[in-house]
Formats: sequence, structure tokens, C-alpha cells
Amino acid sequence: MNKFPHLLHGADYYPEQWLGRPDILRRDVGLMQEAGIDCVSLGVFAWSSLEPEEGVYTFDWMAQVIDSLYRAGIHVILATPSGARPAWLARKYPEVLRVSGSLQRAAFGGRQNHCYTSPVYREKTRRIDFELAKRFGGHPAVILWHVSNEFGGECFCPLCRAAFREWLKRKYGSLEKLNAEWYTSFWSHRYTDWDQIDPPLKTGETRVHAQTLDWKRFVTDQTLDFYREEVKTIRSTAPGVPVTTNMIGLKSNLNYCKFRDSVDVVAWDSYPLWHQGSEEDIRTAQKTAFAHDVMRSIKREPFLLMESTPGTVNWSEVSRLKRPGMHMLSSLQAVAHGSNSVQYFQWRQSRGGCEKFHSAVVDQSGESGTRIFRDVQAVGKRLAALDRAGLGETEVRPETAVLFDWENRWALRDAQGPRRIGMHYEETVRSFHRAFWELGVPADVVDMETSLDRYKLVVAPMLYLCRAGIQKKLRHFTEAGGTLLGTYWSGVVNENDLCFLGAVPAGMTDLFGIRREEIDALYDGQFNRMLVNGKLPLKPEYRVSELCELDRCEGASPLAEYGEDFYRGYPALTVHSCGKGRAYYLAARAEYAFVKDFVSYLVQQAGVRRSVNAELPHGVTANRRAGARKNFIFVQNFNPSTVKIALNAPYRDAESGSAFEKELPLAGYEVKILEETHTG
Amino acid sequence: MNKFPHLLHGADYYPEQWLGRPDILRRDVGLMQEAGIDCVSLGVFAWSSLEPEEGVYTFDWMAQVIDSLYRAGIHVILATPSGARPAWLARKYPEVLRVSGSLQRAAFGGRQNHCYTSPVYREKTRRIDFELAKRFGGHPAVILWHVSNEFGGECFCPLCRAAFREWLKRKYGSLEKLNAEWYTSFWSHRYTDWDQIDPPLKTGETRVHAQTLDWKRFVTDQTLDFYREEVKTIRSTAPGVPVTTNMIGLKSNLNYCKFRDSVDVVAWDSYPLWHQGSEEDIRTAQKTAFAHDVMRSIKREPFLLMESTPGTVNWSEVSRLKRPGMHMLSSLQAVAHGSNSVQYFQWRQSRGGCEKFHSAVVDQSGESGTRIFRDVQAVGKRLAALDRAGLGETEVRPETAVLFDWENRWALRDAQGPRRIGMHYEETVRSFHRAFWELGVPADVVDMETSLDRYKLVVAPMLYLCRAGIQKKLRHFTEAGGTLLGTYWSGVVNENDLCFLGAVPAGMTDLFGIRREEIDALYDGQFNRMLVNGKLPLKPEYRVSELCELDRCEGASPLAEYGEDFYRGYPALTVHSCGKGRAYYLAARAEYAFVKDFVSYLVQQAGVRRSVNAELPHGVTANRRAGARKNFIFVQNFNPSTVKIALNAPYRDAESGSAFEKELPLAGYEVKILEETHTG
Amino acid sequence: MNKFPHLLHGADYYPEQWLGRPDILRRDVGLMQEAGIDCVSLGVFAWSSLEPEEGVYTFDWMAQVIDSLYRAGIHVILATPSGARPAWLARKYPEVLRVSGSLQRAAFGGRQNHCYTSPVYREKTRRIDFELAKRFGGHPAVILWHVSNEFGGECFCPLCRAAFREWLKRKYGSLEKLNAEWYTSFWSHRYTDWDQIDPPLKTGETRVHAQTLDWKRFVTDQTLDFYREEVKTIRSTAPGVPVTTNMIGLKSNLNYCKFRDSVDVVAWDSYPLWHQGSEEDIRTAQKTAFAHDVMRSIKREPFLLMESTPGTVNWSEVSRLKRPGMHMLSSLQAVAHGSNSVQYFQWRQSRGGCEKFHSAVVDQSGESGTRIFRDVQAVGKRLAALDRAGLGETEVRPETAVLFDWENRWALRDAQGPRRIGMHYEETVRSFHRAFWELGVPADVVDMETSLDRYKLVVAPMLYLCRAGIQKKLRHFTEAGGTLLGTYWSGVVNENDLCFLGAVPAGMTDLFGIRREEIDALYDGQFNRMLVNGKLPLKPEYRVSELCELDRCEGASPLAEYGEDFYRGYPALTVHSCGKGRAYYLAARAEYAFVKDFVSYLVQQAGVRRSVNAELPHGVTANRRAGARKNFIFVQNFNPSTVKIALNAPYRDAESGSAFEKELPLAGYEVKILEETHTG
Repeated sequence: MNKFPHLLHGADYYPEQWLGRPDILRRDVGLMQEAGIDCVSLGVFAWSSLEPEEGVYTFDWMAQVIDSLYRAGIHVILATPSGARPAWLARKYPEVLRVSGSLQRAAFGGRQNHCYTSPVYREKTRRIDFELAKRFGGHPAVILWHVSNEFGGECFCPLCRAAFREWLKRKYGSLEKLNAEWYTSFWSHRYTDWDQIDPPLKTGETRVHAQTLDWKRFVTDQTLDFYREEVKTIRSTAPGVPVTTNMIGLKSNLNYCKFRDSVDVVAWDSYPLWHQGSEEDIRTAQKTAFAHDVMRSIKREPFLLMESTPGTVNWSEVSRLKRPGMHMLSSLQAVAHGSNSVQYFQWRQSRGGCEKFHSAVVDQSGESGTRIFRDVQAVGKRLAALDRAGLGETEVRPETAVLFDWENRWALRDAQGPRRIGMHYEETVRSFHRAFWELGVPADVVDMETSLDRYKLVVAPMLYLCRAGIQKKLRHFTEAGGTLLGTYWSGVVNENDLCFLGAVPAGMTDLFGIRREEIDALYDGQFNRMLVNGKLPLKPEYRVSELCELDRCEGASPLAEYGEDFYRGYPALTVHSCGKGRAYYLAARAEYAFVKDFVSYLVQQAGVRRSVNAELPHGVTANRRAGARKNFIFVQNFNPSTVKIALNAPYRDAESGSAFEKELPLAGYEVKILEETHTG
Repeated sequence: MNKFPHLLHGADYYPEQWLGRPDILRRDVGLMQEAGIDCVSLGVFAWSSLEPEEGVYTFDWMAQVIDSLYRAGIHVILATPSGARPAWLARKYPEVLRVSGSLQRAAFGGRQNHCYTSPVYREKTRRIDFELAKRFGGHPAVILWHVSNEFGGECFCPLCRAAFREWLKRKYGSLEKLNAEWYTSFWSHRYTDWDQIDPPLKTGETRVHAQTLDWKRFVTDQTLDFYREEVKTIRSTAPGVPVTTNMIGLKSNLNYCKFRDSVDVVAWDSYPLWHQGSEEDIRTAQKTAFAHDVMRSIKREPFLLMESTPGTVNWSEVSRLKRPGMHMLSSLQAVAHGSNSVQYFQWRQSRGGCEKFHSAVVDQSGESGTRIFRDVQAVGKRLAALDRAGLGETEVRPETAVLFDWENRWALRDAQGPRRIGMHYEETVRSFHRAFWELGVPADVVDMETSLDRYKLVVAPMLYLCRAGIQKKLRHFTEAGGTLLGTYWSGVVNENDLCFLGAVPAGMTDLFGIRREEIDALYDGQFNRMLVNGKLPLKPEYRVSELCELDRCEGASPLAEYGEDFYRGYPALTVHSCGKGRAYYLAARAEYAFVKDFVSYLVQQAGVRRSVNAELPHGVTANRRAGARKNFIFVQNFNPSTVKIALNAPYRDAESGSAFEKELPLAGYEVKILEETHTG
Repeated sequence: MNKFPHLLHGADYYPEQWLGRPDILRRDVGLMQEAGIDCVSLGVFAWSSLEPEEGVYTFDWMAQVIDSLYRAGIHVILATPSGARPAWLARKYPEVLRVSGSLQRAAFGGRQNHCYTSPVYREKTRRIDFELAKRFGGHPAVILWHVSNEFGGECFCPLCRAAFREWLKRKYGSLEKLNAEWYTSFWSHRYTDWDQIDPPLKTGETRVHAQTLDWKRFVTDQTLDFYREEVKTIRSTAPGVPVTTNMIGLKSNLNYCKFRDSVDVVAWDSYPLWHQGSEEDIRTAQKTAFAHDVMRSIKREPFLLMESTPGTVNWSEVSRLKRPGMHMLSSLQAVAHGSNSVQYFQWRQSRGGCEKFHSAVVDQSGESGTRIFRDVQAVGKRLAALDRAGLGETEVRPETAVLFDWENRWALRDAQGPRRIGMHYEETVRSFHRAFWELGVPADVVDMETSLDRYKLVVAPMLYLCRAGIQKKLRHFTEAGGTLLGTYWSGVVNENDLCFLGAVPAGMTDLFGIRREEIDALYDGQFNRMLVNGKLPLKPEYRVSELCELDRCEGASPLAEYGEDFYRGYPALTVHSCGKGRAYYLAARAEYAFVKDFVSYLVQQAGVRRSVNAELPHGVTANRRAGARKNFIFVQNFNPSTVKIALNAPYRDAESGSAFEKELPLAGYEVKILEETHTG
């Protein structure tokens, strides 16, 4: 299943910063070998070194670097340089620079900030991509193309505004349809000419939700279009090498799911901030696990950790040193969630620029004896051993999924009401994912377009915006025997944020057997109580807050009710049989203790298998990568101190071969990898 | 005294959002009757439906709606559509869009944001107003014109800047006079040509107080001028129907008192945010009471509650559901303070746009069985009964006034010193008003231009900016036997924020018999003590903070002195006889306990009558609407729980006829209306 | 050493604000004499009164004022008016107005905000300066020129951008050199034409540290160049009178050290905010003492307190009245630190403008009986007496210095890592200065360009950016017998913020005998412990936080080590012998208790003399001004209450002649001045 010759261990490499120091370039290769680096990303941001003047290409330095790396057994991930433009390009063709939402053209500077519509920028990019692919595309060192860098942001220039109008014409066909979906009868916004339409400009209209949503979709589509043009140049010039781009997880403004079919492998840059405090480490681990699962679930295949820091980042508030053990743990966490690589930003620390205090494998001292260098060496060795043991032949195959949709996320963030100080969609989704993490249950995190066929249990919180077909898909899933958990504030609007008329949750009143009457929003610090009735083996009472729906049962059975306020006695949790399955509906945002207890109950009811047959202590999780012959179970301890895990079955250490009968000990920040051989 | 055929119960109605759903439009009329709605506002923001292309008027849909409403006995308040312009208008004539203080022209979007100077916008507005008036002005359904919507904001475009210069020429006559009043010798700002003068631009000069004040005055005047042009078109085309515009209370940047003679009735939109907490409910009730009194005092006549929410608003941080009882209480609070209507925004919830989660009488389910619908029905029934009982023949007639001046408010907000973290003018005024509220004493809240003749007691806090004649007016009031309370930081600047030279409080040292030497500003958390001497039946000691004036008595008698710091022993409260009256002067910002105790003392001394003969429990107030034959007393309980009021006299329930001898019980959030028949 | 005929006691005087009130102008002279004012600053911001139309000069009013002052024995500091331009100038020549970092041209308004490059502004300034110098330069009243006012800020207009490019050409000579130092290979920023380079525009590149540093240097240089042009006009027209400009201490964006050779005397405006709380008063006193020392150390000569408030300022959050005693204390604090003047802003309170609530010697009442007026009188009397006693013949001569470099300050503020929530350079420097203040040890605060020859002890914290030669200078200082204290995060980058390669602290590993391996940044609220070993007479343990360096000793001896975390046992404080001196290195930010104890130890070890032979109570300090015949010791009590100081030697009061044998009593906010006669 690994699309590459081996599990990759590598780093971003910027030889163009050291062209005046051939001694350092020479020393780099030896140090890479010493560190166990077998793969580097080359050419990210190198445009001004590759094309110092318009049309003048200076590739020889790169050729020498690639050759010298290849001779040393180091592979190359070759980047196109479009992530940052040279100064001459910006000066000569200002159209390549972005225009802000207040219609100001940017000056030269920064990176990842070109206009994605500009024909000039596309042409200049096409030219240099073509030249690069021609020169290096067939080099045996090159195992992957890395297109541009961390796409993101938006541009409001006249070209982008015109492109947006064309996009709208394609989507809606007629102004009549657009006026209806954008609900322009509100505030006299009806358009009578396509040219009257603008993106959500800061100085114009930012509160027409359908318009804002469409703009976000357009930005993703236009960025994807730019990416695809680059891919086209590469594939037509140098076919046969896989292509990707490095993503940035949940911080992105793009809907990465749209890239699903255009990347050969998902690659992303993960930068957890460890050691903000020991309890925060566990939160950070859970957030990072969630991000890995989100990124893996785009294609539901192994992915690449394209960037991570070997030590600290410099852009965080505080650059806390990684404690001994954390570098290994953090690196293998990615692998446990499905990564077939551990790559770093960057190989050698820069002397200048705003990232000069970002850690690198080799720091400004230039020596190999540093703690970071040794940490990196250790990861290299362990990866190589796991590769030999067959880890590359495995993948993560969850039986559960959490539904997390980027368009729904956009819509909920933009929503004006019922709780403008925080609808907390992402936090809510993550609280369910956290329960799976604590139980050691692998989970996918999928959008509304993904098929649910392979799951036993699906948690679908806050389905506010229902993309076409999702209600049907959930019904089919449940009828076929699945266990479904939905929540308050579902079935509210259609794809264009236009409210459904009639009974709500729209299209799902039959599925859940309930109907929403009202929804109460609570201030921070205000609470209600959820009283669980005898039908569930949970605690008698939990706290709810933020959003409390007032539902009435129309077929469903109540499992819990509110304990306070004028809606005391209204159902707070219900269950409804639907075909062979069951649909649960949670009416209010519940405290995490409930989430954990209830998810645990659902896992058991749905017959979902946990990664390891044991109760996991606080701060510990386990992930399974399954293969044809055997499974690898990564047991990770995010506590700074030693824990012991009481086992319900014996396990063997995949690396050392040691056997654990009743107890598995883990030192602080330790990760152990267990082996599960298929019997029969 | 009611200018309309009945107490109005109505809502904003936007049939233009449902033109594609004739079934819904048909159903609306029946639902309105079911809800007891007898009046709707029509046409607010309907411009793009009324004039979809320049000069093409499509009024038939509106004609049908008006006819059908009229047939069902429902009156119409007809709006001019100038509150939001169509897209075609903005595209073709960009001058109608506002320019910000940093000189950026807005893009199309939003509402209530046109340039009020633009000749094009005035002409386009005139045209459609004329057409509307011609077509509908004589329709028997139409009982009131509603001009535009919630005027506000400011525009810095070249047209407005030129108009500002003309306004200044009219005000000052010569540059010499302007230079003197604006004190341009400071920082070399002397103007030698009118064209050198700009409004307070963000990128220019925002700290010349006289300039900023004049700009705010100009903005009010220019907005008023725009409004008057609309009124002129309507009145000349369709005479005989009263005209108003809907105001927004204290949030406005306009001095609404300037509209006094140009509106036939004051109408305003009141949106209190209930249920932030039970103690906060009482604060909210007091703030809302203050706002009602401010708005009523513009004309000192009954007003209209033009908008209110039947449930929640969507633009607040948290959309908390109205608890049972609160809708009735909140609606009748307006009536108690002098409103002859309860109108809602809006009749039917929108499907899209940024207000789609704002409550409406009919929500997106389209049903009449909802809690909100039933709450609205109940208000309708009660209003109708009160109307029959003669409430429309009564009005609020206070014997006390609090002086609150919009220009003084502007000046104090802009002031650089002595306490830039908060002069708290409005809070101070409200603390005195709160004391009246808690005592059940009706109070007007008037500006410096209003006559004080009808009052026994006037509280005039922080008369920082003295508009011409106010000192004389206060002296006449006192000499004629009135009781006056003034405070620290009075008599500081003239109308243009130019300091008075010589003794301060300027023009009032004789009135109060004191003279200010210095003023100490305190940090938050710093306090002094006010020690009350034996002449007053108050507590021996209160806390003061924020601003402590160091005065010396020149004729006044001290009633309290400071207890701490180097000005210990200086007078903190004084009294001075002046003609037949008394002028009290409070030297420091006192804690609320003092305000309550002292106002209570003054009410007694001045012989001011309270609304109900009883001590009111915490969170309860009473308002009297007085008529020729009888008075109605609204006793309102803003506590969630039951209270009992010990009565000093018997009362009869105005609705049920029940008699209360010694005790009046009120359930949580209940309002009871007592009747007082004139004997003799 | 005093360059002026006497210790100056004066105020800013704006007769142009009162030209319409000759009665007031007449009264002013008498009031000045009554107040003991012997010197006024004239003409600041008077341009529009001096040149009301282009080329038309109206100087007669000023001539009359100067004559009348001179007749009354009052000297004049004559300002050039370039601090604020007339409206006609801004309207006719918009190029004189600044352009912001987002490239928006300012509108007319404010002050101290002209473009310092504009040829027009320079020419207009030259013309009026010439006329002023011609008319008044030889007047015997004029004892000092005051050029412009509080220079500061920056301008991004095309003229400034072009000048910046020229400045860069002069600095770097070639683009190749600039590209190397700015490290433009990072993010493809390589420049191939000078015209591609911009300042750090908000919409462009603000994170290239070398570029930002160069821009700040350019801004200082260009401002200085503007100042020098004014000086040239004055000196060539009216030679013989000293010239200065008024600075604003540490709030400035300019590196004032660059003005060292261009001002004849350092003058600055000091505005401490007293009475935020009694403990805060001591902090304020220490901060103010630091600022006085910084300003004095620019030239290491007596300076002028050019502005201070006689009462409150109006621009602070809260205008707290000065408590009795504080005005004298605050004024003499400046004198104690080396000022030969006490000057006020301003003489007479303005009637309008944004500073109308700033205190003045004469307030809007126009009377002389006010508390402030009497406070000012008292300072005048005391200054005159001290002048007669010979204070003008003394100066401050410290044996210690704290190194505080403006360029290092810029670089640390701009740094992205390792602790973006606060590197706290200035706070760290001030904590060492505070220890000297508490010990009563006079200290200079010098930049990296200043010679260290005259000191016994130098504290040099956080030498992050090493300007050329500083490492050598520190080594020579130490080898020659000096005691040096350096700290963590030193020797990191060169003058252009480019990291040193190899061992760090670069160029100082031999000096300190240590080498840095890593640096750990801590979140707020996280701590480590520093365990002191037996070699030092300090407490056994102190707390460290924020930044903890992991060093290894290469020659140094550890004096303390870390007590926690994975770097427990690493050295936290070391000492290294170097020639005849000793170099201490502190590896972590230590709590103030350590700073105080350790500085106290170093003072003793280095044989540094304290101002007074006594232990000083909390909140009390002492400064010595030394003369040929005798020394004056200013003992200042910043507590509101009385303290008694136990003396180790007898002293005589310099003013009253009283003797203090064992105990020196000081009332709250009192300052006593002791005399020390040289024996021998």
C-alpha cells in the first residue's frame, strides 16, 4: 500500500541558501547519512535561484545537488517553486499580487500569496514547471512532485472577481435562480446583471451567507484549478511520478476534500505545540490525532507527514524545547494514524529570515552532536526497522466514522445566531473523536460526500447545513443496520444556507423520530441538567450547556430529559429504530463525561473493535495499522511519567519480540509497537 | 391622545420575499387574524421589488397585498424604501454609496448606508416616494408613513465634505469666528480658506473637539434634511396621513431631539436582551425603561413601539429564549412608558439572509401552534381589552425630569481627560433614573432645550457642556421653587467645547453656592468616603469613586464631606437656597446606595407623587398613565419568581375588576394593571 | 558644567493663543515672576501665527513678547515651528503629509507628522527658520534654540522610499551584499534591481528582520538629517547660541544616541504617571530614574528637563492629582539625575484643543492662588537656592553602567522566537538598573558604541544583536580589571540580524568560558529553580522563568545550577576569570530577589561606591551629583509616609545646614539634599 520504495525519513532542504558555501553543501550529504535521512524536499521557494531573470534558467546547482544526493542513496521530492515569486516578477507584473477584501493590492513580500487566477502567474508557473520537469522529471532520485506550497488564502482582484461571476453563472445558470438561493429579496439585494455581483468585500456585503459560502467554494475551486494546471504541465512533461501538494490540516481555508481525486497521495504539515503543560499535552495529542484522521480520511489511504519540526517552531508564542522522548512519540503518532513518512522542516537552520529560530536537524552550530540531531537519528533507525518488519504493507481501517464537513463548518462559523459567541462545531466533533481516542478505537473523519458503507457506527454532530443527499445516506446507513448518533441543530439549511420550511430536522424527522420546536442558547456559565432514565447504563445525571433544543418525540423513545427551566421534562436524548439500525438523537451540548460514557456504550452496542484489548489509562491511546499478514498496534503514552496497562490478552513487541502477558509498561512519552499476527 | 384608530398590534411584513409562494401570502392574512395582528409595516427594503429597473415601477403585488389586508381589517404602515438601495442603483451611481472616515468608498451591500447628501440618491428617492404616495397614499388601509429605516451613520464623501463646509459657513459666518471657537491657534491649525477644512477624518484630525462636535451636529442636520425631503414629497402628494421614522434609541449617532418637530409621532425599535441572568434582567428592565423615557420625552407625547422581537434576536451574542411571561411583560413595559403600540420585527421568518434566525411571529415551520405565536396572541387580546378600557386616552405625565443631553454626551465621550477610561455620563444619568424606577416615580428624560416648567424636581448630572441658556433655565427653575440636583464636572465648556475662563461651574457658582478648585480622577478600584453630616436623614457614610471634585463653599452649606486623602474635609455634598427653591450639588461620583437614598429624600422633599402607594420590592416597578377619567398603573415584576406588594391603599385590577386591599401578588414576570378613578 | 546662566525654571509659553486678550498677555509676565519662572519656551507650533500666508511673516507679536519677558528678567528658549505645519501648507503641498505603511497619505491634522524627506517641507522650514534666526537669533533673551518638537514617527511616501534605496546603496554598495545580509534566498526574495526594494510595508514584507532594522536606522538617520538642516540654518544665521531638540525618552522610535554629536545639550520631556497606587509609585520612580539615566548617558553630561507637568497630564487613562509633596519630589528627581532645569508644559492652560485638560502653571481660572501655582513657586525657590549653593557646578559621575542598546532593542522586539509573548529586554535591563537604584548606586545606561573605560562594573543583559566590536570592547573592559555580568541569549546575530555560525555566544565563549547548547522558552506561569552553590553568599534558591539557556562550561566555574526538568544540573550562573577581571554569565531570567542580591554582591566585589553611607528603606533612593568642591546627595522618599534612614556616617543638609548624625528622617514624598564636602 505504500506508494514509495520505503517509509520516508526526510526534510526540506534549501541548498540555494548556501550556494556561497560549497563546504557546507558537501558536508550536508554526509550529515544526512549520519542522521538517517533518506529523502529531501527540494526547490520549495527556489524560484529566484532557478530563474533569476525572466526566461533565464539556472538549474545547474540543483542538478549537482540532486546527483550528489542520489549517489548517497537519498531520494528527492521535487517542488515546483510557485509558492513564492521572485521580486522581478512582482515588479513587472503587479497582477500576480493579491488584492485584499478591502480592495488593496498587496506589495511584494511573504509567500503563498499570489493571485491564483492571474494568467501571467499561471503562464510563468507553467514555463518554469515545464523546464523543471524536462530537466529533472526523469531523474531516478525523484520519487514525488510537491506542487507549490501550502496553498491558501484568497484574492479579490478584478480577475478573481470576474472568475467568480463565471463560476456563479455555471452554478446557477440564471440570475433568477441565484436571487432565489441567495435570498436577495432580503434588504433589496436582488441582482439584475451578473456584473453587479461581488465577492464578500469587507467594504461591501459580508453577511449574505449563501454568497459567502459560494465565495469559499469558488476559492477552493480556483485554487484547485491552479494546482491542476501545474499537475498537467508536470504529468505531460514527465509522466509516471506521483504528484501531491502539502496541506496544513484544519487551519486551511480550503476544502481539502475537493483535492481528493487530484492528489496521488495526501501530504500534510503537522506542527503540534507540545509542553504547554502536562494536561495540555494530552489535549494536543488528541487534536493532532484528529487532524491526522481528517487528513487520512480525504482519500482513506496512507498519507505522508510532509513537514514537522525536529525541535521547536519559532512562530508559536513560546518555543518550548521538546522533552526527551517527545520527538519519537510525536513522529510515530503520525505513523500510527497512517503516515508512511516522517519529514522535517527543515534540514539546516537558516541564518536569516523570519524562520531562523525554527528548529532544524542541523542547527547554526553546524554540528551533529546536538540533542535534536540524535533524536532524529533515533527516529530514522526505528522507521527503517519498522519498514523491514512490513509496516509499509499496512493501513488504518476504522469501523467507525465521525462526520465532519468543511462546508458545514464554514456555514456554522458564518451563522448569525443562535449563539454568536461560539457554535463550537469543530470542538463538538472533536469531543466525540476524543472519546474514540481514549477508547483506542480507530476512527475516520469524513465529509458528507464520503460513503458510509464500511462503518458500523457513525457520529454526525450538528448537521446544520445538509448537502444534497446526506439525509438519505444516513437513513440508508441506519436501515442497513448501522448505529447513528445525531444531535441538536441538524437539518436547518440547504446547501446554500437557505432554511428548510416545515418540520425540522428537515428530512430527518422520520429517521430520528423527533421534531424540533425551539432551541435555547445559553450564556457561558449557564447550564441545564440532563437526567438519564433507567434504559441506559449511564450515570443518572450530566450537565448540558450552550445549546438546548426543545424537541418533541414523534416515534422516538426518550432516554434522558431536561431537569431544569421551563422545558424541564422535554427529551434530551432519544433513540429511534429505523430498519435494522438505531438512530440516537442528542438534544443538547453535553459535558464530556457524557460523551465518553455514551460513546463507550455505543461502541459496545455496535460491536466495534478496539485496537488493544485493555483499559487505557488517562493520556494513553492505541492505534491499529492492519495488514494482510499482521497488524501493528501503536500504544502511545502522552504522560511525562510511567504508566502500566493491564492487558486482557497477551501481546508481543513488534520490534524487540518481548512478550507482555498481563501488563504493558510504558515510560513517560514512550510509544511501544505491538504485533498482532492473523491466526487463520 | 392616541393619533391612531386603536392601540396598534402589528409586525413588519415582507411579502416581497414570498412572491413565488402565493399560497403562503394567502395563508398570512388568516394567520394574522388568528394572532390578533391589526397593523403591518409594509415596504421597508422593498425597493428592488418596487423598481426592479430604473424608472420601471412594479407596484401591483403591493396593491394586492394592501387590498387583501384591508379586507381582513388590517391597517398598513407604509414605508418608503430608501433604507436599502437596489444593486442597479449602486452600480450605476456610485455616489450613493458612503465613503468612510479613511476615505474609502463602500461597495454595494448592507442597508441604511446611503450617502444622505447625494443629489442622485435624493432624486431617486423622491421619484419612488412620489409614485408610492400617488398610488397608495389615499388608500384607507394606510394610517401612517414610515420614512426609510433606522437612519444613522455618516459619510465622508466629497459631497458631504462640501456640504459640511457650507454648514460651517452658515454657523460661523467668518473663518475668524470659526478659528476662535475651534481654538485653531493650538497646534497651528488656523484655517485661511474654507476649503482647507475637512470633517474629522481618521487619517487627519480627530481630536479637535469643536470640529468633531460640529461634524456630529452636521450629520444629524444632514440626515434630518434628507428625511424632511422625503416627508415633503409624501405630504405634498398624499396629505393627511401622519409621518414618522423608526428610531433606535440610545445606540444612535444622531441627536433625535432635532427630529422633534418633524415627526408626527415618535416611533422606535426596542430590543432588550432578556435572561442574561436574573439580576441582569432587572438591569435590562431599567435600561429599557430609561430608553422608553428618553424616546417619549422627545415630544413628551405617546409614542409607538415600532419594532420588538416576538422571541429572540439573532444578532446578540446568545439567543436566549424568552421565558414564559416575559413576552407579555416586555410588551406591556413599553405601553406602561407611553407606547400606543406593540409592533414586531417580523411577521414571518425569512428563509435566508443574515436575519433568518431572528424570531418572527410565524417561524419557518409555518405553523400557528408555536409558543411564540401563542404569546403574541395573548398580547393582542390584552391590548384590545385595554383599548376598550380607554387606555388610548391616557398618557404619562411626570413631575420629575432627568437632564440628559445628546450634545453633552458627544462632548463627554470625546473628551481627553480627566478620566479617559470612562467619564460614564450615561451610566451616571441612568443611576439617577434607576432610583426613580425603583421608587415607581415616572420621570421624563429631557435635553437642555426642553422647558423645565412642569417639573417639581430636576436632576442634572455632569453638565459639562453648557448649551446656551441652560444655566439661566436652571436658575429660573430653582428660583420658582424647584428642587435641583447638580453634580461635579459641570459648567466646564461652552457649546463648542471651549473652556469657560474664570470661576467654575461657570454661570452656576451663584446657583449652587460653590466653586470648583480641582478635580481628582481615580483609577478603577480606588475610592474615597463621603461622610454625611447630621442635617440629612441618610446613612452616615457612602463610598465615592471615579471623579472627586475639590470645591469650596461660597454660600452653600455642606451636607457631607470627604473622609480620606489630602482633601479630607472638603465638601462632598452641598445645598444652597435660591429663590423659593434649593440647589443641591454632589461633588463626587457616589455609589448607587447613596443615589437611591438621596433621590428618595428629594422626592419626598419636593412632594413628587409615586405611581403606586406602596413600597416596591426589588425588581418591581410601577408606571402611571393618566387620563381625564381614570389612570392606569402598570405594576411590573421583572423577577422570575412571585412577589407580594404590601399596599398602603386599596386598588382595583383594571382588567379583571378584582380588588386588592392590603396585598398585591405578582407571579414571576407578571404585569398587573391597576385602575385609579378620579374622585372629584 | 551648566551651559546656561542658571538652573532653569520655566515653561512652554503660547502667547499666540491669547493674542486677542492683551490683558492676559500683560498679566502673564507678572504671574511668571510671582511663580519664579525665569525661562520660557516660545514658538513651538506657532507657524500659522508667524507665517499666516505663504511668504508673509508676522513676527511683531513675538518680538513684543520677547522684549517684555526680557525686561522682566525671563529668558527665552526659541523654538523653530516645524513641529506642526499650517493648513495652507498642507493644502498647497500635499507631499509634506506623511504616507502610512499601508500607503495612505494622511490628511491635514495632528502634529509631529510631516514627511522628513520632502524637499518642499525642508525648504519652507529653512525659510522660516532663517527669518526667525535673523530677527531673534541675536536677542539677549534667547539662550537656547529648540528645534521642532518631539521628532518621531515614519513616512512611507515615494520620496522616503527613494531615499531609503539611496541609503541602502550607500550602506551595502552592491545588491549582492544586500541580498546576502538580508538573507533574501529565503522565500525567494532576492532583489535584482534596487527599485524592487521597499520599506517594510504593512501590505508587503514586514518580517525580514534585516530590512526592518535598516528601515528603523534609515528613519533615525533621515530624521536626524532633517534636524541637522534646521541646525545649519540657525547656526549660519545666528551663531553662538546652543541648539537642541526635545526628546521623549524610551517611547521614541528613534535611536537618540545618533543625535549625540548634533545636540549641544540633551533635553527631554518626562511625564511619569504618579499615584496609580503607592507601590506603583515606587515602580514609576524607578522607571523614571531609568529614563533620566538613559537620556543623560547619551552625552554623559548634564541635561535639561524640557517638559514636565505641573499637575496632571490629560492623555493618561486617569488624571490623578499630584499629592502634596509629589511635585517637588518629581522635579528634584530629574535634578538629582543630572538635569539643570525644571521646565513645564505649559504656562497657561488652553481654552480648547485636545490638551485643554492638561495641567498648566496657570489654569483656566487665571488665578495664582491655586495649589499647583504654589507648588511651582516652591520648586522655583528651591532651585534658586541650590543654584546659589553651587549645584550648577556638579554632575553625575557613575562607576557602573548598564548596557542598553536601541538597535538590540529593535531587533529583540522584532524577533520571531524563541518567546513571542515577550523577550522583555527592556524589563530585564530595568531590573538590573532597579537594583542599583535601590542600593543608591548611580549608574549610566549606555549603548554599544559608548566607551566603558570609566566603569568598574558593567551589566550587559541579553546581547542578542552584537554591533561590530562590542565583544572586543567587553573583553578589554574585563581584562583590564572590570567586573562584567552577561546573560542568556547573547551573541546570537550580527548587526543585520543574521545568525552567527558556530559556537555561541558568538565571540564571547572565551570571555565567559561557556557555550550555549539550547534555549528553553517557558510559558507564563512556568518556572524552574536556580540552586546556588556554596561559593556565593546568596540565598540557596531562586526562581527562574521565561528563558532558560542550556549551557556547558568550557572554562567557567558554575555558581548555581538548575533544579528541575531534564536540564537539572546544568549551570544557571557561572564565573570566568579573564585578565584582571571577572566575567559572570547568568543563564536564565531570574526573579528580582536574585538580581538585587547578586548586584549587591557585585557592587561590593567591584568596589563601587554608593551615594550615601546607609541602608535605604523600601521606596527610597539616593543620587550623588559631584563637583570640584562638594557633592550634593539627593535622598528621595517615594513612599506616602515618613521613613527614617539609619546612617553609617554623619551628613549635613545642603540647604538648611542641619546636621544628621545617626538618623535622617524623611516625610512622605520628601526629598532632602545632603552635602558632602571634599576633604583633601
